[in-house]
Amino acid sequence: MNFVNLQTDPIQLDEIYKKVVSPCCGAISSFIGITRDNFEGRHVTRLSYEAYEPMALQELNGLCDSARQKFTDIKHIAIYHRLGDVAISDISVAIYVSGAHRRDVLDAVSFLIEQLKANVPIWKKEFYDDHADDNNNNEATTSYSWKENK
Amino acid sequence: MNFVNLQTDPIQLDEIYKKVVSPCCGAISSFIGITRDNFEGRHVTRLSYEAYEPMALQELNGLCDSARQKFTDIKHIAIYHRLGDVAISDISVAIYVSGAHRRDVLDAVSFLIEQLKANVPIWKKEFYDDHADDNNNNEATTSYSWKENK
Repeated sequence: MNFVNLQTDPIQLDEIYKKVVSPCCGAISSFIGITRDNFEGRHVTRLSYEAYEPMALQELNGLCDSARQKFTDIKHIAIYHRLGDVAISDISVAIYVSGAHRRDVLDAVSFLIEQLKANVPIWKKEFYDDHADDNNNNEATTSYSWKENK
Repeated sequence: MNFVNLQTDPIQLDEIYKKVVSPCCGAISSFIGITRDNFEGRHVTRLSYEAYEPMALQELNGLCDSARQKFTDIKHIAIYHRLGDVAISDISVAIYVSGAHRRDVLDAVSFLIEQLKANVPIWKKEFYDDHADDNNNNEATTSYSWKENK
């Protein structure tokens, strides 16, 4: 089965794990994307994600179908993406794949995160806590930029 | 850091996840190996793992070093392997890798599980619940075989 979800609540990994585990599966692989505290040298304070939800869900389900065509040994796929504000070290996306053997499961996770980043209409707004360089000005300024996944 | 562990207690995934997460890491990937209920058509009732522990730990630590040489973007590596009896659907091995970006993290997990299966002296004994073919003999026989990972 495919379990695809967009949610504003924190992502619970144990809940996703329980969805994909199965007695016939010897392998589960996952990718978990997390809010980092920096981007190209700038200090990131938080991220916010927005999606055009109907299209994002449709694209995510389409990705699951593509993965199953390429990797036929797959049993379950779960793709959970957070929307709204995500604090540093919190999970923004979690992908889990289960199957009988490890090779297809590992390759499917890699394929799914690359395709998600490239093709699914979910955008992130990155908030920075920038200090005005090093001339004794300690005042912090907050700025942000919208960016596509890459 | 490297977290390498052989244990007879059940593997707790949330405990491992907490070890590898870090504010500077945007990516965590994992591979989880699970006891399947079948092997080449035979019904497996349970597995048991044995290791020559000092050598297995040394090999696992060596694998972490090799992974860090190949994939320089890695922050933390955790490899937990269960020893003794492992019930169906229970976890026998869990590998988690964290890092700033996804590519090295995904590739490192794949590298580590392949190398672990090929080179680390941990053996599994597979127990089968075999029925004497289909001539109305319902008596189950239990058999087992030792096998190398593959």
